[in-house]
Amino acid sequence: MPASQRYLGIDPGLRATGWGVIDVAGARLVHVANGTITSNDKLGVAERLVELERGLISVLEAYSPDGAAVEQVFVARDPVAALKLGQARAMALLVPARAGLPVAEYAANHIKKSVVGAGHAGKAQIRMMVEMLLPGCGVQTEHAADALAIAICHAHSGGANERIAAALLKAGVAR
Amino acid sequence: MPASQRYLGIDPGLRATGWGVIDVAGARLVHVANGTITSNDKLGVAERLVELERGLISVLEAYSPDGAAVEQVFVARDPVAALKLGQARAMALLVPARAGLPVAEYAANHIKKSVVGAGHAGKAQIRMMVEMLLPGCGVQTEHAADALAIAICHAHSGGANERIAAALLKAGVAR
Repeated sequence: MPASQRYLGIDPGLRATGWGVIDVAGARLVHVANGTITSNDKLGVAERLVELERGLISVLEAYSPDGAAVEQVFVARDPVAALKLGQARAMALLVPARAGLPVAEYAANHIKKSVVGAGHAGKAQIRMMVEMLLPGCGVQTEHAADALAIAICHAHSGGANERIAAALLKAGVAR
Repeated sequence: MPASQRYLGIDPGLRATGWGVIDVAGARLVHVANGTITSNDKLGVAERLVELERGLISVLEAYSPDGAAVEQVFVARDPVAALKLGQARAMALLVPARAGLPVAEYAANHIKKSVVGAGHAGKAQIRMMVEMLLPGCGVQTEHAADALAIAICHAHSGGANERIAAALLKAGVAR
């Protein structure tokens, strides 16, 4: 049985950043924790980013994941929304990378396909499938459901590749 | 004579983030330092943000500013450019805010008006005026020139207000 790997999925947003942690051993997925980091919209953007950073650091410290995954964004509603999302997304990329974790990025339709089986699934469908794939996860918010979906996608794709590479390396098999 | 204040201006960009530090005593502006932090475009965005963060931390440690200012962005070319800018901008906001500095934001045309006297000045005009206002500053790049312009704007507007408030407070004068 391959060693268990722990993945952190992050769904970034300035108002609310969702996160989800799962353990992966072979094809088995186990829910560890999920939650949402919110920022105080009475504060300026700079202070809100400090809040998001602090929250993500706490998650890393509490769960020590082996890798992280964040949704890749190609398009946003408009430049203003894109700028805000970019600022929040920077925290999701910075905090794990600075801690030395590999940070994978997956396109939204790749995540949906990986979790629901279709590239154009809605929020409710994603949440339902996350709850089916991770029994008893008790998803707290839509953002946390999306974050768990990203972690599941990572386990199904990039994560699997990483594990195979690590296992071959351990067995001394050159590829 | 009012106590001297030190301001850091930052012109964020993922490829190149300009910075400039000035000392302000009353109406007198003195150049301290300027430069550009670049990120390696062979790396992923997460690692590039770590590079920008590290560079900005070094600037803060080297020059210990009393306040920071960053350009406020309302529009960007397109959502993709806005997302990239947002990610780089997050570092410019996060690093000073986390260090406990007030971070001011000024609209681009406000900065231009404050430095050149007109809201629609070009890059070359800004650089020329920055070099006139800060003799011997030896601006290294266009990004550094923009960063010094932001610091000058802060000295002319928000910075001045801060100084007045601090002086009144010190003198025990209630407003």
